[in-house]
Amino acid sequence: MADKITPRNKNYPQWYIDIVIQAKLADYSPVKGCMVIRPNGYALWEKMQEILNRMFKETGHRNAYFPLLIPDSFIKKEAEHVEGFSPELAVVTRAGGDKLDEPLIIRPTSETIIWSMYKKWIQSYRDLPLLINQWANVVRWEKRTRLFLRTTEFLWQEGHTAHETAEEAQEETLKMLFIYQKFAEEYMAIPVIAGEKSESEKFAGAVKTYTIEAMMQDKKALQAGTSHFLGQNFAKAFDVTFQSRKGDLEYVWATSWGVSTRLIGALIMSHSDDKGLVLPPKLAPLEVVIVPIYKNDTKTGIMNYADRLCKSLTGKFSVKLDDDDQNKPGWKFSEWELQGVPVRIEIGPRDMEKNQVVLARRDTGEKITVNKEHVAEEVKKVLEDIQNNLFRRAASFRQKNTFHASGYGEFKEIINADGGFIQAGWCGSPACEAGIKEETKATIRALPLARNGNGKKCIYCGKDAAVTAVFAKAY
Amino acid sequence: MADKITPRNKNYPQWYIDIVIQAKLADYSPVKGCMVIRPNGYALWEKMQEILNRMFKETGHRNAYFPLLIPDSFIKKEAEHVEGFSPELAVVTRAGGDKLDEPLIIRPTSETIIWSMYKKWIQSYRDLPLLINQWANVVRWEKRTRLFLRTTEFLWQEGHTAHETAEEAQEETLKMLFIYQKFAEEYMAIPVIAGEKSESEKFAGAVKTYTIEAMMQDKKALQAGTSHFLGQNFAKAFDVTFQSRKGDLEYVWATSWGVSTRLIGALIMSHSDDKGLVLPPKLAPLEVVIVPIYKNDTKTGIMNYADRLCKSLTGKFSVKLDDDDQNKPGWKFSEWELQGVPVRIEIGPRDMEKNQVVLARRDTGEKITVNKEHVAEEVKKVLEDIQNNLFRRAASFRQKNTFHASGYGEFKEIINADGGFIQAGWCGSPACEAGIKEETKATIRALPLARNGNGKKCIYCGKDAAVTAVFAKAY
Repeated sequence: MADKITPRNKNYPQWYIDIVIQAKLADYSPVKGCMVIRPNGYALWEKMQEILNRMFKETGHRNAYFPLLIPDSFIKKEAEHVEGFSPELAVVTRAGGDKLDEPLIIRPTSETIIWSMYKKWIQSYRDLPLLINQWANVVRWEKRTRLFLRTTEFLWQEGHTAHETAEEAQEETLKMLFIYQKFAEEYMAIPVIAGEKSESEKFAGAVKTYTIEAMMQDKKALQAGTSHFLGQNFAKAFDVTFQSRKGDLEYVWATSWGVSTRLIGALIMSHSDDKGLVLPPKLAPLEVVIVPIYKNDTKTGIMNYADRLCKSLTGKFSVKLDDDDQNKPGWKFSEWELQGVPVRIEIGPRDMEKNQVVLARRDTGEKITVNKEHVAEEVKKVLEDIQNNLFRRAASFRQKNTFHASGYGEFKEIINADGGFIQAGWCGSPACEAGIKEETKATIRALPLARNGNGKKCIYCGKDAAVTAVFAKAY
Repeated sequence: MADKITPRNKNYPQWYIDIVIQAKLADYSPVKGCMVIRPNGYALWEKMQEILNRMFKETGHRNAYFPLLIPDSFIKKEAEHVEGFSPELAVVTRAGGDKLDEPLIIRPTSETIIWSMYKKWIQSYRDLPLLINQWANVVRWEKRTRLFLRTTEFLWQEGHTAHETAEEAQEETLKMLFIYQKFAEEYMAIPVIAGEKSESEKFAGAVKTYTIEAMMQDKKALQAGTSHFLGQNFAKAFDVTFQSRKGDLEYVWATSWGVSTRLIGALIMSHSDDKGLVLPPKLAPLEVVIVPIYKNDTKTGIMNYADRLCKSLTGKFSVKLDDDDQNKPGWKFSEWELQGVPVRIEIGPRDMEKNQVVLARRDTGEKITVNKEHVAEEVKKVLEDIQNNLFRRAASFRQKNTFHASGYGEFKEIINADGGFIQAGWCGSPACEAGIKEETKATIRALPLARNGNGKKCIYCGKDAAVTAVFAKAY
């Protein structure tokens, strides 16, 4: 059986790592900062990919694949882009036994290589919009890493679209932001704030960056996905023009947007408890596990009963009968709780006699007794209920830990005490933002889409607020 | 409209490239030897992944993800492995602004990094078998590259399994070989020879390498997938032992197996013709395209008719109504033929009057008239028939171009004339194999699984043959 998991209230970061390791989601690799995603963790990623792929394709996007390696000179073509990424690059200098004439960069993101291709593919407005997504690995040389949350190499999807007009690109940027929000809330059961990033937090090379921000159980914020309006920055850097409907030659408008294996970290930190992983049913690779409880004399009967039940649920749910003979039921209960399986079905001799089973919910621990004839409908109901309950629980937790601060003293008090999200006025000056960060470690997580100071004053300098910002400490 | 495709009989290699570029399957990238897989090509890869994933999971394998970067010292731990791969490695020497203490290799294949992890995960026979697959990109610095067939970076899956006994590992090796064969024959409609590689052609680090070999339309062989029995080579290199059922400490037995985006090249070169791509229906992202034929006065009626038909086929097939107003029907016919869509449905005014449609098959060009009420069943039948016909056609082509040579003179004559597969005796000596390669460029593609010389003589030295080998020039 797994070692004990450090309780959240004792050591939250250690609790997180304990779950990742003991639920066999990921492991440390021999390469500094790189993780191994084990089958249990990768199954979560596959579920996420499946759902996101459907959402992307329904909105007209197609998948493609661009090279891992990018010429050094490409990265340097967009001024802000190179400034943002150059400290994090991994560089190939030798290949095939020779020193390369020009070093190659392992992609930290693919705008540059993709826009060098878009130059070949886009001539006229008839080639637009170009809506492409890529599932890929990227490398950013991070100093401090943590499994799933920040790793040197990670898996992600990156959408890169090209449009005729600024309006169309802006619309695409927000459309994808809202798809991310929908995915987070309806599938991951994580409520998120969708908003804009401040200038200092935006993507290197973007005109505007939008984000979805989630609150973890330690009340810190986690950026769960971003969508960027790139303006004509990359089109100009790579000289990508098109003949417009009017016959003019114009630069193309761009967006990019991405989510990564970091989402798995967000999923763990939003719902799990001191027993292990808790998964929203819509993302659980295994929805139901059946654990038979027998002694030697009842084994055959129970196993037949359990086996028939398992067969009757197969096809309706992802279900597994734990028929391992080496471990006791109590051990199995703990193990499947650690793995986060939403529903456990227990079957003992008395249940068999009474033609019933016991359903145990992973989220609340609640057990209900169900007649054998109604197991399928009851499981369906319970799974839906768990999905909804996890979202409600997380939303209520976030609400309880979201504060309004009217003065900087109060602001610092909240941040230094228990943390959470703080909504406060901000004048828009980078100096105030930097001062707050320096003094409290809190950053602006998001600005509301419809900007409005609501008559507030800037929480730092006291001047009129341009906007109400959401501040928090963050991952 | 697309440029003309070079006919096969004029310039076969150019014909292949023309199809890849004009059907927008892939494009050259600015990084030497690396390709961009465009949406049309990537859709084929996604279909292949979907089917192979199902086959892998049905046989108990689970997906995972291991790091892209491998410490230099790991690659060197298995003597044959480093010898085989060191000329092809891409090396990261700088990262995060600093020179690395130990260079990192971009994985050319993942045995070493995976077995370093298996050492952590395997202690007892209860941890075995360990059946893991990974979908990933790999880099091998190739001197001469060709889109899909040989590129510096390519996408693939690599299975890596660990077993208690040599027998079990051998069994796994062949099981996966036969899965590849089934995939090639039943889905790609490509007949393959499943056999063993000779010593000189085996994977660097394997005890035995098995292969599936297909014949392309230029009569050259293409290695389409390999499955390796690795013995205890990597377990010894990474000191991976387990406590056996008897309580002894033993080295673990291993296999690895993979197919890559090269399969897309095989698919193109097996079935396509001078009009463009020809796709087996089971792998076609789009199965049916509807092309309406109208003049101004018949447009509304025809479009309604076509639209109703399209709706009635949706859900049953992957279908698209080409309602583009800018291009003429003839242009559309050529374009969809270039894309390899298996069935085209043409609807003109006379068809509408008679309550019928015309189905055109991509493989034979044959057209049949079908009553509107029976379109779905007829399309289903035609798709099945195309799938079978493509396989039969390829099998018959291979049969016509497979020869038996009884003497070396005859052997050379066949190879130098028209090429093809030659079955001939081989004594088993590497010197004979090397002599043949040197003098004719033909290599041993596969040795039959049940080795038998059949009383033959070695085609090169004339001594008793140990085996009947299949020789051919190859990609």
